[in-house]
Amino acid sequence: MKKLFAEFFGTFWLVFGGCGSAIFAAGFPELGIGFVGVSLAFGLTVLTMAYAVGHVSGGHFNPAVSLGLWAGGKFEAKDLLGYIVSQIFGAIAAAGVLYLIVSGKSDFTDIGGFAANGYGELSPGGYGMISVLVTEFVLTMFFLLIILGSTYPRAPKGFAGMAIGLALTLIHLISIPISNTSVNPARSTSQALFAGGEFTSQLWLFWIAPIAGAIVAGLIHKALFSKD
Amino acid sequence: MKKLFAEFFGTFWLVFGGCGSAIFAAGFPELGIGFVGVSLAFGLTVLTMAYAVGHVSGGHFNPAVSLGLWAGGKFEAKDLLGYIVSQIFGAIAAAGVLYLIVSGKSDFTDIGGFAANGYGELSPGGYGMISVLVTEFVLTMFFLLIILGSTYPRAPKGFAGMAIGLALTLIHLISIPISNTSVNPARSTSQALFAGGEFTSQLWLFWIAPIAGAIVAGLIHKALFSKD
Amino acid sequence: MKKLFAEFFGTFWLVFGGCGSAIFAAGFPELGIGFVGVSLAFGLTVLTMAYAVGHVSGGHFNPAVSLGLWAGGKFEAKDLLGYIVSQIFGAIAAAGVLYLIVSGKSDFTDIGGFAANGYGELSPGGYGMISVLVTEFVLTMFFLLIILGSTYPRAPKGFAGMAIGLALTLIHLISIPISNTSVNPARSTSQALFAGGEFTSQLWLFWIAPIAGAIVAGLIHKALFSKD
Amino acid sequence: MKKLFAEFFGTFWLVFGGCGSAIFAAGFPELGIGFVGVSLAFGLTVLTMAYAVGHVSGGHFNPAVSLGLWAGGKFEAKDLLGYIVSQIFGAIAAAGVLYLIVSGKSDFTDIGGFAANGYGELSPGGYGMISVLVTEFVLTMFFLLIILGSTYPRAPKGFAGMAIGLALTLIHLISIPISNTSVNPARSTSQALFAGGEFTSQLWLFWIAPIAGAIVAGLIHKALFSKD
Repeated sequence: MKKLFAEFFGTFWLVFGGCGSAIFAAGFPELGIGFVGVSLAFGLTVLTMAYAVGHVSGGHFNPAVSLGLWAGGKFEAKDLLGYIVSQIFGAIAAAGVLYLIVSGKSDFTDIGGFAANGYGELSPGGYGMISVLVTEFVLTMFFLLIILGSTYPRAPKGFAGMAIGLALTLIHLISIPISNTSVNPARSTSQALFAGGEFTSQLWLFWIAPIAGAIVAGLIHKALFSKD
Repeated sequence: MKKLFAEFFGTFWLVFGGCGSAIFAAGFPELGIGFVGVSLAFGLTVLTMAYAVGHVSGGHFNPAVSLGLWAGGKFEAKDLLGYIVSQIFGAIAAAGVLYLIVSGKSDFTDIGGFAANGYGELSPGGYGMISVLVTEFVLTMFFLLIILGSTYPRAPKGFAGMAIGLALTLIHLISIPISNTSVNPARSTSQALFAGGEFTSQLWLFWIAPIAGAIVAGLIHKALFSKD
Repeated sequence: MKKLFAEFFGTFWLVFGGCGSAIFAAGFPELGIGFVGVSLAFGLTVLTMAYAVGHVSGGHFNPAVSLGLWAGGKFEAKDLLGYIVSQIFGAIAAAGVLYLIVSGKSDFTDIGGFAANGYGELSPGGYGMISVLVTEFVLTMFFLLIILGSTYPRAPKGFAGMAIGLALTLIHLISIPISNTSVNPARSTSQALFAGGEFTSQLWLFWIAPIAGAIVAGLIHKALFSKD
Repeated sequence: MKKLFAEFFGTFWLVFGGCGSAIFAAGFPELGIGFVGVSLAFGLTVLTMAYAVGHVSGGHFNPAVSLGLWAGGKFEAKDLLGYIVSQIFGAIAAAGVLYLIVSGKSDFTDIGGFAANGYGELSPGGYGMISVLVTEFVLTMFFLLIILGSTYPRAPKGFAGMAIGLALTLIHLISIPISNTSVNPARSTSQALFAGGEFTSQLWLFWIAPIAGAIVAGLIHKALFSKD
């Protein structure tokens, strides 16, 4: 049970910090944090909670991570449902609090894209569906290769939280212009629910592509890197 | 006694480095560090002093942290007063030196907001009182969850200073536009004293909200994550 | 064999993440990551894969690194060819996927410089051949001194991946304006192949200078720092 | 003897990377790294060489650091001269290579301020002599408190290189607008030699203030934090 709370809090923090920095601070006139700041924020949500509750739940905060670890033989199938539900609840709760805060802005009119993910006309840089699909697949695959590799017994102890958090920063540095960066179906779901409209009808891609990439990474890790 | 000196120096550094970077460097024409730089600066003050004097005093540098650790059962009530007084003195001393430096600028007229915290018209992005209250509560709560979690015996040894410092960077990446980011009543007090006016009358919020968030985190940690 | 896969994936990630962030995100209007973001991205590709597969292959991801380690007595000559071929294949595969993604942009016309390296008219800041040659030599020499020094038995355990990755970030902070930063012949080769034209005829420099710097570093390390 | 080479290479890297990033990349149109990038670069020069050669020489790369460690009882007086001379030679050699590279730029006319330090009209933000003196004193004092504290036996092992390097980043985030940031007489000397003119006649301050701050820190550390 306390594992599920850890996943709830961790995914809340990921969405609150990552999407929150994008909503509040990315485009602030002159001094805004831009894509670099948002990339750093997303990575640091995972880095910080990995050290805070990683020793409780493993620190997934992402359905694709849970499924990739299962494919790699590092997580039991029976725990998948609880983890994924907790992650989605955490993400939605965070999006709700973000909505509460942003609606208290003096010049608030609407939430805009609310840091949701999209392709085609909803891609920040106008990238098509295939580009977004390939990007999300490749990035989630490498994210899981890094998670599985850096937590492997022969890797240096304690550094996995740094490597994994900074991998998420890197992933955002590459792909915010392409898809607004998902690699995490829970994060995509919560923001699409609030952003609504076309964002909801594109949500399928941000479940399919990250999960496919994660599972392929699990299989690659098992085949290539996990036997000595 | 040497613990109190450690808290004094640590909180001096937090205010001198964090608020100083905001005052001197954030808005420098063309090359200024913006909110990303200020966020990094605040986080690095804590990261660096956590390694420098964390082994002396525990490295709180923040009354909300001391109270949150007390609520979480990691700090004794009898030490609270000394720590908090040292933190406030350290913060005020730093603000004084910042005033001395900035008043030596060739085109100095007044100190402006002096990196003080505020809501409503004093919020950088025009966020109302409720938004600021919720933000400061949630951010300080997670700050303490990260502090309590990353220093927990089962967490990887030595990395807590990285996680905690970078958590403060993350917190600033999210919320400078909302409240100029406090999560630390000592830092709010020193800057409000110098900025004066309306900033002083809003100071109550930056004691109430961070401390409430910190205490709730202490209770959550005790209830959910600290028994095995 | 699994070492060669590790080098393939690592170099793929270096080119995909480093050059990808430059191609997709560096110049995005108003919010783009600029040279700071690209520098961070290149460094984080190596930092993350060093922890993920460094324990498999040593984590070179760069022919100059393999040759410098050989010159420093830390890598066997018989493994050089396999490593270098895997690195080049990984880099080219990444460049191919980058091409696929960028060509799916709604306003795509051509790939431009594709983050390739160059001097003279192809240098971002208009630096001549000698400047670029000296820069690439010096930077790769220090890159290898850092790699050899931080993995030396007396250095703190586990931190080498941080130091080496962040060294690559630093190297880019210095030299993107000069040469677009190579210090890695595989990364230069893959991008020149796609960018074509003059970039291909300047490719020789980005093999010669980094490899010369790396070998000199290997000899310096052996002469000065490796015997106690 | 190999300690002196380590100090030479380390200080070369500090000046080449820190001042080099300022000269080549800070003001690059639209994509330049600004003060954030230069701050990161200076910090990473020390972070990377601390892990590379810190186990050889202790990794000072700065006369004020050597003198502060001596005042704190951690460095022997008889080694001071050799270290300081090596540091100055390393800094001057780096400035020479920077001159060689920048003079190969197609539109090169003169080296401008060459990242030298100054006050009054030579301060980037127009800060007067007292402001600069106080700033350099306070920042070097904290730099040494962090060095002495994070290398203290009770501090977490291995993290000192991170804390010290990132402290230098923080110091630059605060004070580039004030003095262009020295805290290092070797770095100030090499740049003043090349920049010439008024920069040379202001050089005294960048020896006096950092060294005074460093020595005070050594005494504070010895009095307050070093006996258990």
